[in-house]
Amino acid sequence: MAHPTVTMKGAPFDRAAMETLMRRRLFYTPSFEIYGGVSGLYDYGPSGCALQANIVDTWRKEFVLEENMLEVDCTMLTPHEVLKTSGHVDKFADWMTKDPKTGEIFRADHIVEEILEARLKGDKEARGQKVDDEDKEDPKKKKKKVKVIKAERLDDALVKEYEEVLAKIDNYNGEELGELIEKYNIRNPANDGELEPPKAFNLMFQTSIGPSANSPAYLRPETAQGQFLNFQKLLEFNQQAMPFASASIGKSFRNEISPRAGLLRVREFLMAEIEHFVDPQSGKKHPRFVEVKDVELELLNREVQLSGKTDVKTTPIGEAVEKGVVDNETLGYFLARIQLFLLKLGVDKSKIRFRQHMRNEMAHYAADCWDAELLTSYGWIECVGCADRSAYDLTVHAKRTGAPLVVRETLKEPLRIEEWQIDLDKKKFGPKFKKDGKAVEAAIEALTQDVREKLSLELKENGKITVEVSGVGDGRVDVGKDLVAIEKRTRVESTREYTPNVIEPSFGIGRILYALCEHVHWTRPGDEARGVLSFPPLIAPTKVLIVPLSAHPDFQPLIHDLSKKLRTLRISSRVDSSNASIGKRYSRNDELGTPFGVTVDFQSVKDKTYTLRDRDTTKQVRAGEDAILQAIVSLTEGAESWEDVAKRLPAFEGQEVD
Amino acid sequence: MAHPTVTMKGAPFDRAAMETLMRRRLFYTPSFEIYGGVSGLYDYGPSGCALQANIVDTWRKEFVLEENMLEVDCTMLTPHEVLKTSGHVDKFADWMTKDPKTGEIFRADHIVEEILEARLKGDKEARGQKVDDEDKEDPKKKKKKVKVIKAERLDDALVKEYEEVLAKIDNYNGEELGELIEKYNIRNPANDGELEPPKAFNLMFQTSIGPSANSPAYLRPETAQGQFLNFQKLLEFNQQAMPFASASIGKSFRNEISPRAGLLRVREFLMAEIEHFVDPQSGKKHPRFVEVKDVELELLNREVQLSGKTDVKTTPIGEAVEKGVVDNETLGYFLARIQLFLLKLGVDKSKIRFRQHMRNEMAHYAADCWDAELLTSYGWIECVGCADRSAYDLTVHAKRTGAPLVVRETLKEPLRIEEWQIDLDKKKFGPKFKKDGKAVEAAIEALTQDVREKLSLELKENGKITVEVSGVGDGRVDVGKDLVAIEKRTRVESTREYTPNVIEPSFGIGRILYALCEHVHWTRPGDEARGVLSFPPLIAPTKVLIVPLSAHPDFQPLIHDLSKKLRTLRISSRVDSSNASIGKRYSRNDELGTPFGVTVDFQSVKDKTYTLRDRDTTKQVRAGEDAILQAIVSLTEGAESWEDVAKRLPAFEGQEVD
Repeated sequence: MAHPTVTMKGAPFDRAAMETLMRRRLFYTPSFEIYGGVSGLYDYGPSGCALQANIVDTWRKEFVLEENMLEVDCTMLTPHEVLKTSGHVDKFADWMTKDPKTGEIFRADHIVEEILEARLKGDKEARGQKVDDEDKEDPKKKKKKVKVIKAERLDDALVKEYEEVLAKIDNYNGEELGELIEKYNIRNPANDGELEPPKAFNLMFQTSIGPSANSPAYLRPETAQGQFLNFQKLLEFNQQAMPFASASIGKSFRNEISPRAGLLRVREFLMAEIEHFVDPQSGKKHPRFVEVKDVELELLNREVQLSGKTDVKTTPIGEAVEKGVVDNETLGYFLARIQLFLLKLGVDKSKIRFRQHMRNEMAHYAADCWDAELLTSYGWIECVGCADRSAYDLTVHAKRTGAPLVVRETLKEPLRIEEWQIDLDKKKFGPKFKKDGKAVEAAIEALTQDVREKLSLELKENGKITVEVSGVGDGRVDVGKDLVAIEKRTRVESTREYTPNVIEPSFGIGRILYALCEHVHWTRPGDEARGVLSFPPLIAPTKVLIVPLSAHPDFQPLIHDLSKKLRTLRISSRVDSSNASIGKRYSRNDELGTPFGVTVDFQSVKDKTYTLRDRDTTKQVRAGEDAILQAIVSLTEGAESWEDVAKRLPAFEGQEVD
Repeated sequence: MAHPTVTMKGAPFDRAAMETLMRRRLFYTPSFEIYGGVSGLYDYGPSGCALQANIVDTWRKEFVLEENMLEVDCTMLTPHEVLKTSGHVDKFADWMTKDPKTGEIFRADHIVEEILEARLKGDKEARGQKVDDEDKEDPKKKKKKVKVIKAERLDDALVKEYEEVLAKIDNYNGEELGELIEKYNIRNPANDGELEPPKAFNLMFQTSIGPSANSPAYLRPETAQGQFLNFQKLLEFNQQAMPFASASIGKSFRNEISPRAGLLRVREFLMAEIEHFVDPQSGKKHPRFVEVKDVELELLNREVQLSGKTDVKTTPIGEAVEKGVVDNETLGYFLARIQLFLLKLGVDKSKIRFRQHMRNEMAHYAADCWDAELLTSYGWIECVGCADRSAYDLTVHAKRTGAPLVVRETLKEPLRIEEWQIDLDKKKFGPKFKKDGKAVEAAIEALTQDVREKLSLELKENGKITVEVSGVGDGRVDVGKDLVAIEKRTRVESTREYTPNVIEPSFGIGRILYALCEHVHWTRPGDEARGVLSFPPLIAPTKVLIVPLSAHPDFQPLIHDLSKKLRTLRISSRVDSSNASIGKRYSRNDELGTPFGVTVDFQSVKDKTYTLRDRDTTKQVRAGEDAILQAIVSLTEGAESWEDVAKRLPAFEGQEVD
């Protein structure tokens, strides 16, 4: 369902206009388009590529450098065994249903959802109510399977049932979806053909390594596993110091059954993931939590959702952790840092919320999980997940491989542990118990401390103990004091061994990029055909557009010189020397999100002065080369705002004509 | 065959020592090692990751920004049809041979090579000659299949035959390899089992997109195809201006049959590729060629190789292009720029050469191709390819899809073309030729200008022409002047349409990274157990190691302050506050390739002075915070050398103790 959103200027947001702009300006484009394209695959062009690189760069600075994280770059190809252990081979799946006659395949939850929605619309029409006609606007973009909606009135009770099913559509398993398909007679909308019961479809792309057929592998569904597998080496590299975090930026893959929703649901995508390893006994405190405790977040917690509402509560993260709304400091620390990062990119603060996962949404091992969701025209979209994965991953890989994915810590004060210890005279066990010797031994050694304490009294009183050993005699075996002794003793431990817990902030870079573009897109009043993308200078694909007023050869040395000086200052620039009007070139600049424009005119040739134009206000100032370059540096670094510069340098009023 | 190489200090290079260092310091590590590993897959740890990021960053600056290239980020998943058209489905293959009894698979050329080499060694032993015992040093690393070498004397003639085969081992096709296997009785070295005739094994990883089985796809073997498919959009983005280049940095894949040689032959690797599009009629000139024409390259051209030699010739690139050794300016421009880039990274100039491809090595469409090869302990290794791919790729994709992958240029002066035009009275063709009408028409329209001219005379003289139309009558058809007219007319063309040619510099980032590590690795005389990696500051994973002399709490604020100031200066630093000795920590620093060390001692607490240590000379200077930070900035930016700094700031002699 499309949500009504407004632009940063308060006007209605026009998705079609923005998407057209982004394709025209080559932010992105469907991959293999000349071959008909493949759904869910997109290429980034120069603008998208630079935007993506700037987002990644900011991420690396804000997280990896700021926190001295250990960055790794692991392979995407991953052998079967690893993903079998992690649970992905068995559980990373969606439900699909097939029309056996045509072979067409649908994602089961999507087809149920779509058909019930269509019927509800048909019902509204039949009742003469107003129908939201979003589909009619742009039927192609939506790729809906249901082409025609029949005006047919439904029972009031059935309407209520449909609405309840739709509210819970994300939570049905395959069997339940199969029941819905049967109960509501869900059929292939194209030919009314019957659908098969849903089957699980694993969402990993499968391949095979090497020439023999016995090395099945997958493209990784997340970058996390590579980080877990290297835990021991990373801990060693970190000189055994805890806590620490690893980080990874790279592509992951998800073989969607039938992707729609553009850049938001793709089959190949860039992720940036952090695995922060903590001692579970530390209370998951974070040493820098104090720095962010006053950051206010819009929290949508589990309880509110359970009550069927979506009211967010503005809460300082310090308070949220203190009250236990957010499970621990480390998780809270990252939620705050995620928001600060998103704001730095230019995301609209009023379009961020943090939604807690419901219990049945989380993996069984997760302690807590919050998503940073951004409001787009597609609704609230999960862009960053932040989960406490507990010790699950390290534990399963350690168990499967025998690798010690643990921390060994020398205790400052050795631990003195009092415990009941059992001594067995093993030499006598064979002669006495024959083939059952081992089983009896094992049963005795498995006894708990409580039982040992009781048995020590029994041994003292009766000279023997009676132990349950299943499968030996009648299941109860007597062992005399000639064979066994039980004593309370003190054991000293000087090291502690534990499996760290993992807090995982996981960023979908493509989704953030797309949502950001929606947040910064607007049109100038009276000039709705031309868009503006108001990226902050830090993130803008190109910082400066250089616009020569004419193709006169006298301009060349100035352009060359300006470009070179900007390059030395590490500020990206482009020259637009096409013969379009200055106004047209500036509006191209606005669509590319370039924050500043420098015009080279005949006056420049005489005295090396230039005009500097601000994208958002379209105001201009004029000054000599040094002053203009200095203003650009200070604007792109964020040291000054346009208002500051406009106060300092003389305004320029001429020239901008269409 | 291993080549004897020496370190930058002239001592023998010890590969095993360097590889141990690189793994210990987590530059790289075998992927999935706790699961037993997968050959040909490696992960980069923090040091390797930072090194790789710095190389990529330099590449982007030297090529993409410097030349305003249009960077794109295309998907790795590529549908079958695209790679069928490009020729990869049919030709991107190696030959494999199987032992049918055990199922073991060998790369055919490798197994022939290895067995013949082993026999030649055995022959030498039998003749009592000295045998190069490289294998005995490190049998595991080599993963040789031949474990035991039998001392057995061969005929002199056979020795010569074997040597000839080995010299040409890269040039045999499958059938020829099969003949060699039979002729020389090449068998599975493990069990003497017979080997099957070689079969082609396609080196692309295959997968499937979506849930149905009819969308076969591959992981891309190069980033080039995505750039070609977007040509039209990129040209449009570039406002139709030619020439221009696109560029892409991303992972590609090659499903090696049985990879060895560590980081040099991997199944998943980072590439940086440029596609520079030029007008073939421009003479492939490059406007900036003049800037590089005096750059001297070590060229190993085709003729020298044909004569069986490997003598390189130091040639200024200007001269090489002028004499036609290098085909054109654009190709030459990039060869020079490749060398300048490699030198910037710290590659040893004496270990670079440019080798021209032999005719049979190049794709049939390639006009010329040169590899930048770097000398390593594995021999000369291709690290950058620079090929003129002509118009091949754009042509085949345009032909297959109908997309106009061409440049349309408005001609300054419209072209007036005189030509013989043929007019057919098509209405009369049916009645006259019946079912053969179309064939006759087609045959006439296919006639060349020369033939048309001759036929125009024939028509004038005889009132008819005789045309060859295979499959019609006796293959010769008469057409009278009532049906056909031939006249010379003038056609005016105001636009020119052409398919650009492509010059493709293609960088294997992982290979460059590995070769660079070999080039900068050395050990201090008398301290051979500890390595040094002398990366230039620009490329070094971390620029500064901060070493507190003790864990005294008074040091904390200083360390915090230094780290923060360096972060603001965008200079990466790490703190080593382990309780190892200063000497041990510095030597860790040397192994990580960190060029500078700052020591915080008790004096620092008093007066905020620090010592600054140079990795390569181990010399130190001491100064106040500002002076030290300023020196670090100027050293990492390359504005000053250590010698300059050592002259300016007072030397410090104390402290470095083991």
